[in-house]
Amino acid sequence: MLNTPTPASFTFSELTPTSFLDRAEYAFAERLAIVDGDRRFTYAEFADRSRRLAGALGALGVRPGDRVAAFATNSHVMLEAHHGVPFAGAVLVPLNTRLSADELVHIVTHSGCRLLLATRELAELAGTVAERTGATLLAEGDEYEERLAKAAPSVVPVADERGLLAINYTSGTTGLPKGVMYHHRGAYLQALAMAFHVRLSPGSRYLWTLPMFHCDGWCFPWGVTASGGTHVCLRAIDPAEIWRLLREEGVTHFCAAPTVLTMIADAAPDDAPVEGPRITVATGGAPPSPTLLGRMHGLGMDVTHLYGLTETYGPVVVNDWQPQWDELDDSERARLQARQGVGNVVAARLRVIDESGTDVPADGETMGELVVRGNDVMLGYYRDVAATAAVNAAGWFRTGDLGVIHPDGYAEIRDRSKDVIISGGENIASVEVERVLDSHPAVVESAVIGAPDERWGEIPVAYVTTREEVDADELIEYVRTHLARFKAPKRIVFGELPKTSTGKIQKNELRGREQ
Amino acid sequence: MLNTPTPASFTFSELTPTSFLDRAEYAFAERLAIVDGDRRFTYAEFADRSRRLAGALGALGVRPGDRVAAFATNSHVMLEAHHGVPFAGAVLVPLNTRLSADELVHIVTHSGCRLLLATRELAELAGTVAERTGATLLAEGDEYEERLAKAAPSVVPVADERGLLAINYTSGTTGLPKGVMYHHRGAYLQALAMAFHVRLSPGSRYLWTLPMFHCDGWCFPWGVTASGGTHVCLRAIDPAEIWRLLREEGVTHFCAAPTVLTMIADAAPDDAPVEGPRITVATGGAPPSPTLLGRMHGLGMDVTHLYGLTETYGPVVVNDWQPQWDELDDSERARLQARQGVGNVVAARLRVIDESGTDVPADGETMGELVVRGNDVMLGYYRDVAATAAVNAAGWFRTGDLGVIHPDGYAEIRDRSKDVIISGGENIASVEVERVLDSHPAVVESAVIGAPDERWGEIPVAYVTTREEVDADELIEYVRTHLARFKAPKRIVFGELPKTSTGKIQKNELRGREQ
Repeated sequence: MLNTPTPASFTFSELTPTSFLDRAEYAFAERLAIVDGDRRFTYAEFADRSRRLAGALGALGVRPGDRVAAFATNSHVMLEAHHGVPFAGAVLVPLNTRLSADELVHIVTHSGCRLLLATRELAELAGTVAERTGATLLAEGDEYEERLAKAAPSVVPVADERGLLAINYTSGTTGLPKGVMYHHRGAYLQALAMAFHVRLSPGSRYLWTLPMFHCDGWCFPWGVTASGGTHVCLRAIDPAEIWRLLREEGVTHFCAAPTVLTMIADAAPDDAPVEGPRITVATGGAPPSPTLLGRMHGLGMDVTHLYGLTETYGPVVVNDWQPQWDELDDSERARLQARQGVGNVVAARLRVIDESGTDVPADGETMGELVVRGNDVMLGYYRDVAATAAVNAAGWFRTGDLGVIHPDGYAEIRDRSKDVIISGGENIASVEVERVLDSHPAVVESAVIGAPDERWGEIPVAYVTTREEVDADELIEYVRTHLARFKAPKRIVFGELPKTSTGKIQKNELRGREQ
Repeated sequence: MLNTPTPASFTFSELTPTSFLDRAEYAFAERLAIVDGDRRFTYAEFADRSRRLAGALGALGVRPGDRVAAFATNSHVMLEAHHGVPFAGAVLVPLNTRLSADELVHIVTHSGCRLLLATRELAELAGTVAERTGATLLAEGDEYEERLAKAAPSVVPVADERGLLAINYTSGTTGLPKGVMYHHRGAYLQALAMAFHVRLSPGSRYLWTLPMFHCDGWCFPWGVTASGGTHVCLRAIDPAEIWRLLREEGVTHFCAAPTVLTMIADAAPDDAPVEGPRITVATGGAPPSPTLLGRMHGLGMDVTHLYGLTETYGPVVVNDWQPQWDELDDSERARLQARQGVGNVVAARLRVIDESGTDVPADGETMGELVVRGNDVMLGYYRDVAATAAVNAAGWFRTGDLGVIHPDGYAEIRDRSKDVIISGGENIASVEVERVLDSHPAVVESAVIGAPDERWGEIPVAYVTTREEVDADELIEYVRTHLARFKAPKRIVFGELPKTSTGKIQKNELRGREQ
């Protein structure tokens, strides 16, 4: 056909985010790629180690299409995994480091991972998971280094940019974690979008406050590499260490949930702001409060508000700040900054639709559900056709979040999907916690809701009806043995649960009690 | 296959650069999109007008797949054409505004354009071309505005991101201009790369010194729109007007050949630099001299050196500046800045190969030909399979430029393809000029070479053997009647031409005489 001529063979490359490391290797070979404690790697070393990791994975029996789990803190190992696993043609399965052994076993089994990479802090728990699942463990340390040293560098070319790159498990509204499938093309475009929106450059120094296991670190492992900037690793959230790195490593950018920003502001040294250029901060998970924005500004940090889900490779929506808003007074600016915003530069137009699938008027008042589509929306849930179909609204992905569109096109979430609690940036599915509570012999039924909390944004609170006497602490401990500790209720309220005439538990009423 | 799961229907969008206008329309509806003399358009207006242009084209008989020529200065009309023509499903053919009627007729005929858009300054010549080719003329003015006003807004969805978006005719080494085919995917990625490398944002104000007919303005018509910045149009290169716009419109970015930068520096007001933030300038076509870089710096402008060809959507290579180079002394910095650089963020790794197709060592000394491949390399030459095959070196596009790779991975052109003369940023194919000279009754044979020139970089000089007496001015005028004026020799040298033993003209010797 005339309009689609036969292309010459030099015309196409499959889009894959690992191509950014290929480019950084030749463009920025001797520049500092990674700072991780005492270890520092140039881009030449980072690329070489990633290709050697691919070779080592192959030597351990990993074949193209296999899934490889990474149970890792923010470290050179996790950055190497984000490149070396795809270089082996395999699929990366990042694991939330706060999950319990049972949860980890479920994910490793469900995804069919045959190999488990781990950093040293997590090696022991990783060993337990490996034993229970039959996966091979490759943990940071001498063996990891030896295997890399003796491996043949290897790269399996990407045959199809729409092929699987990663599976990121998420706690949705339905309890058991679902495997969100990412493809190469989506991660490539999202990495470019992130680098563009926060304006990364070869001089950027990006602090890893955001966990890399969260949506592959919003694709920043690839986006920072695309810019030729430096990854400054942070293995645990420690405000004093963050301030040391901000200063000693000349950090220019970081991403974190508002909860973490509050910790950072609380720990600010007396002589803050740090000298030098202002720091660009991206935050998501909850809107930053005006107070927090004001404090961050005073500390030399400019905060951009982003919004997204695991299903959208992280931030699919950005509060793209418009210069004319700088002139507004504080309260008006804070009001605008609390909005989630517009689709990012590679995202399709964001919509807010009513139950019939029609766009609600852009009046800032009419509520609807936020829906998105495009290259930075997941392929679907791994081995879960029904769950994938459930979030598909005629070709648009249902975020589950309810909100409005303002007359200027910016969206604002007014009422998050009620069955997900976001505590300190982590998602907790209420039904998942309820299922564990309900399995306790003393419990008749339970309802778990999010209660507002100054530090964590929300905390899980359980309303429980019992058939025999049981201690609140015992129930909380019981949940902790089955789920990640952060998912356990912080408080238990005993009693009858309010219900509708048809027997449905009235969570709205319980939430009202917690306001 | 497991590794390429069936994607959900919300997962993909075809990549097309017009999607950035869709996004800008809802994200930046009321922000200033275009300044063009007295006319100003918001993004809402820009998007509406572009969709109306698509409707108007349809009403004039343009069907999906048809080619539409644009003979236009840097104007709102040309920006509308870059969106409205693809919105109509048609293929944009930008015409170099300096070409002669004969050349224009050739291109319009070769590309099969049925419609010719023109701005008012060019309407008369466009009328001649339309008459000679049978194309319909739609010129800026009352008719254009009326047709837009009464048109139904229209958008033909992009069915295949690898489909034809534009054909940009270029003077290569083989004489007759060749039609370089761009696809949607390539222009989308190149636009993102440009926006990323020069760091465009909603506050950017981009001055259109670079002609939009050159490689679709290096894809900046889409890249600036992606950022939500403002296009500041400039219909003719006028240094005084440039300085007025730099100041009154608060310009933050522009692109121009070194020749134009010299004009701008020469015309700087006594009180330059302008107040406010520094201006980001991208230059290409020839390396900027240390003197020029120093002058620009003093005028508050930071210059980035880029390199590319029409076949690569403009700059496929960027001199990505590394922070550690800031510390070097002036001469060392100038040496580094004169290098063409590394592949841009979406480009595949740049190679320099020898005649056998092997990479030359990265020693800064061994010469080879620069070759590139990837998504921002053309589909091929329109209706010219032989020419497309001739530039294909085993899946890599041959730039025709000879250079070296330095040990740090940056490429530097040492010896441009000898048969192209670049004068004031415009390509001149020597054979094209020779063919016209040879057609003159008095001429036996001719050789046209580029001679160094302080203002234009190079100027064309003709060495001519005659069979009868003829005046130099007459020959120059003869060329001007057949080709664009800038292609005519600035000087004629009469006499025998030096030849090899096999009878080949020794252009190298002639070049030696001009140094």
